[in-house]
Amino acid sequence: MSKAQRAQVDAILRQPRPAPRNLEEMRAGYAATQAQMAVSDGIRTSETTLGDRRALLVEPTERARPGTILYFHGGAWSLGSPETALPLTSALVSRTGARALSVDYRLAPENPYPAAVDDGANAYHALLKNGEDPARIALVGDSAGGSLAVTTALRARESGLPAPAAVVAFSGCFDLTLSGESMDTKGETDPIFTREMLGPLAGMYCAGQDPRHPHLSPALSADLTGFPAMLLQAGTNEVLLDDSARLAARAIDAGVDAVLDVTAEVPHVFQSFAGILDEAGQAIDRAALFLSQHLR
Amino acid sequence: MSKAQRAQVDAILRQPRPAPRNLEEMRAGYAATQAQMAVSDGIRTSETTLGDRRALLVEPTERARPGTILYFHGGAWSLGSPETALPLTSALVSRTGARALSVDYRLAPENPYPAAVDDGANAYHALLKNGEDPARIALVGDSAGGSLAVTTALRARESGLPAPAAVVAFSGCFDLTLSGESMDTKGETDPIFTREMLGPLAGMYCAGQDPRHPHLSPALSADLTGFPAMLLQAGTNEVLLDDSARLAARAIDAGVDAVLDVTAEVPHVFQSFAGILDEAGQAIDRAALFLSQHLR
Repeated sequence: MSKAQRAQVDAILRQPRPAPRNLEEMRAGYAATQAQMAVSDGIRTSETTLGDRRALLVEPTERARPGTILYFHGGAWSLGSPETALPLTSALVSRTGARALSVDYRLAPENPYPAAVDDGANAYHALLKNGEDPARIALVGDSAGGSLAVTTALRARESGLPAPAAVVAFSGCFDLTLSGESMDTKGETDPIFTREMLGPLAGMYCAGQDPRHPHLSPALSADLTGFPAMLLQAGTNEVLLDDSARLAARAIDAGVDAVLDVTAEVPHVFQSFAGILDEAGQAIDRAALFLSQHLR
Repeated sequence: MSKAQRAQVDAILRQPRPAPRNLEEMRAGYAATQAQMAVSDGIRTSETTLGDRRALLVEPTERARPGTILYFHGGAWSLGSPETALPLTSALVSRTGARALSVDYRLAPENPYPAAVDDGANAYHALLKNGEDPARIALVGDSAGGSLAVTTALRARESGLPAPAAVVAFSGCFDLTLSGESMDTKGETDPIFTREMLGPLAGMYCAGQDPRHPHLSPALSADLTGFPAMLLQAGTNEVLLDDSARLAARAIDAGVDAVLDVTAEVPHVFQSFAGILDEAGQAIDRAALFLSQHLR
């Protein structure tokens, strides 16, 4: 990362804003931050529905290839939308030629767990009912959406549905007990999160459910036997780093394809900075190759 | 891996051969096995010297790009040559457009540690003296050669030389105390190695030196602070799996770029089967992208 790139990233992440007074202002603030990220060229978007939820269809304008990315946006289960994830979905679609369907899943606290997981499972089921080949579907997401990508694959298996071809998570949150060592060791360097901030957000989503459940903390308790190929990317400047490391270790123990891809000195979901930050574009290029290999 | 591909891999790895009676027969057997792997098209080879060792120069016949892969062949520090690694070096050169210089480093037991490390360090130093930009050099190797790629980077730092751009290891052996859990858990599924086989080979190389030294067991004791970007690939069917997992964890703890890339149900240095086995070509494609990103 050059000094100029770092300054541009910091300007977006650290810009002073009045503290949000309510959830509506938090959601507006998150959307305003995401709106400063670059959207890749070579895509078009349209609205559709998947299961019974709204979804944003992101398609390449040329060189389309087979494959569907079922995408789950980030935002700590309580913020965000398919639109806030467009910098990421557009980057993946433009590079792979696959289309993305980005699900507008229900958010906490209005709709805590398992609403979002139900919406993910319904969306995957809807794709299969539409005749999509599961070997041509990848579940992908960032942050809380990375968790939903993993959980949707777990739910598909629990429901006896065929597995998707791959799961990709950018800075996934895989432990709602917040027990990763990096919660402490990276608290100073993470420009976005601390354990103190994540606790209430996790609490809103769990809403009294045991956070150690495999759907809430797959890094602690999910059985990943027979799981699809998984790519987990994270940065070294984030408290959630160990979530990806521990989930990858579980996947490797379960004997499945797993790539743990860690970039130095970048923050949570740094891939959103594709077009601004060299490391972001390079990480997305690696994710796109992984997806293309598994969606063939 | 299709059944036909698995049969072809098994036919090469498990073919009955008379037990070698001496080191010469072991070396001939290893060379005979490697000679059955495919060499990628689009490369030419020539002999050269690097430091005071023979080296095989592997160049692309077209679409050459800047960058040098300093390559260390596998063979448990006592077998192999630049020629036995040609399936791997040719695959990397044809995909990246970079050239490879594959070092004929000295082998144990005739020349135990630190002879091979000295040869690696001398080769890297020779490249720098020839005016090569270290930002355009990657250290790459398989098995024992993966260890030498890491150790050569450590030695460069100890000598005050600038760091190379990247280190890539295929099924590296990073713990000569053989203490990885996979030494036990994968003993049955690994078609090539067991702890009992590796012990004497490690012993020949260490030749009385403490195997916990960072040059012999970087996964246990190497300080990776400021280390170059590192890609570690391994298969789940190998006793050395935990060597890569533990070295990757050390790199992540040290805050550097690190990718741990594990492929399910493939053996030690499965990348040699590029052209035969789908997973091999795909893993090499990922390694080539990683190298291209760091050699730019």
